[in-house]
Amino acid sequence: MFKKLCLIGVGLIGGSIAKAARKHAIVETVVAYGEEEHLANLQLAVDLGVIDNYTSDIAQALDGADLVIIATPVGAIHHIAELLLPHWNPECIYSDVGSTKSNVVDAIHAVFGYVPVNFIPAHPIAGAERSGVSAAREDLFSGRRLIITPLINSDPLAISQLSRFWQSLGSSVSTMSVDHHDMVLAATSHLPHVLAFALVAMLGRKDEQKEIFKYAAGGFKDFSRIASSDPTMWQDICLANKQHILPLIQQLKSEITSIEDLITHNQATELFETFTYARNARQRYLDQLED
Amino acid sequence: MFKKLCLIGVGLIGGSIAKAARKHAIVETVVAYGEEEHLANLQLAVDLGVIDNYTSDIAQALDGADLVIIATPVGAIHHIAELLLPHWNPECIYSDVGSTKSNVVDAIHAVFGYVPVNFIPAHPIAGAERSGVSAAREDLFSGRRLIITPLINSDPLAISQLSRFWQSLGSSVSTMSVDHHDMVLAATSHLPHVLAFALVAMLGRKDEQKEIFKYAAGGFKDFSRIASSDPTMWQDICLANKQHILPLIQQLKSEITSIEDLITHNQATELFETFTYARNARQRYLDQLED
Repeated sequence: MFKKLCLIGVGLIGGSIAKAARKHAIVETVVAYGEEEHLANLQLAVDLGVIDNYTSDIAQALDGADLVIIATPVGAIHHIAELLLPHWNPECIYSDVGSTKSNVVDAIHAVFGYVPVNFIPAHPIAGAERSGVSAAREDLFSGRRLIITPLINSDPLAISQLSRFWQSLGSSVSTMSVDHHDMVLAATSHLPHVLAFALVAMLGRKDEQKEIFKYAAGGFKDFSRIASSDPTMWQDICLANKQHILPLIQQLKSEITSIEDLITHNQATELFETFTYARNARQRYLDQLED
Repeated sequence: MFKKLCLIGVGLIGGSIAKAARKHAIVETVVAYGEEEHLANLQLAVDLGVIDNYTSDIAQALDGADLVIIATPVGAIHHIAELLLPHWNPECIYSDVGSTKSNVVDAIHAVFGYVPVNFIPAHPIAGAERSGVSAAREDLFSGRRLIITPLINSDPLAISQLSRFWQSLGSSVSTMSVDHHDMVLAATSHLPHVLAFALVAMLGRKDEQKEIFKYAAGGFKDFSRIASSDPTMWQDICLANKQHILPLIQQLKSEITSIEDLITHNQATELFETFTYARNARQRYLDQLED
């Protein structure tokens, strides 16, 4: 389907794209671009059989590519856009995998002065608390959602080719606006990550004196799992999507404060109602998962 | 080892104790006590083969019992203590499974005027987001921790017999003070539950307009799992252990606010450091799990 996939960034997501695309024979060759400090990682990716080759020469990396996917942390997007600009090929499809979409589109716009019709922003809703190319899995996207956030001028053919690419990797492809994406993901992914980091950081400081983790039950393991996520990635996401994350943090703090008030004033019935409401909301979420 | 186990409360925990104790042949008979409104549930427990029998006559339930375990939500403990008082048998061991221990000891003290030497407070660190006797599992306590919080006057023989009982069910038994238990559990269990309930309740209210749950990834499923816990149980725990939970809620809100400030002021390096600290703290927790 594609002759040459050029990957910019070969961590968990980039590596898993390469593995899955090669397994399903959707690409002939996978070449990665990386700067000097990433070459050891790219050599590891070759050694693991994840990619075919790599180079620190961007012209060489892009030469002949008909699909370019940016899979770096989202904070690097402006710099990557500057690298791509002089070599832009209207025959190639460009995409990314960023967990935030406004900042990606803004960065492309800032560098190009417009968003090229063949740059199609995308986000695979998949991940794991492990990171790096050695954690890459060919089935990472299987049965997961992939959201494409096209712009008004995006090339319909490029959108459909990119959709087919991800469907071939096992993903279920949805389309929504950039802003809606960033609002939804702030609520169901970015906010929970902030919360998990906050909780585990706070308890970690206590634990250094008191060994409280020793008696944590299985629930804590699940609850804290996302606090093991990649710090660089999440630093970038928090800053890139702050306009959606900050209001949600405010709302969550209000919710916590109202539970705190109910506990303080022994309002058992109202606590029961809040917890029941939450339990029912989660059940709606589980019911949707099964659809 | 025991002739007759009298269970007061046959939900997930009580039912799992009955199943496990019978499987390992540690008790000859399991009889449950319940009031009128619980008889249908106790009949279900008989039908499922979890218990041998039940009665709403407390004297009959206790007659001949050499082990009594209270497995109701912790809010019921005062009432249960009143029921037990007139029938107290110095030859029998009494225990409970409450997630908070101060309030259990306080309730016993309030009713008896002292804490009998053969009442040994205990807490199995096991649970699941499912509740009720139909979710009971004979392996629920296998490989899990069981904390005994003896008092200064507790009978050493009763402590060691109760320890052996739980070890036979597969638990690893630790001992600590009532107050230390309640502090540790507030941090690693009660606070995360409050947080999960708060997050899912808040998102649930949004979700009614916006279907945000549809795009939640696997991380959200794990993170929100404990928001499916039993609302009555958690209403009781929050009120019973408020003296430890409320200060932790304050500390967590401060931690969230400091992350919020870092995001607001684009302090990437400090965000990275906080997230890295949390990730490392969780790794310490995981390393302990493997010990």
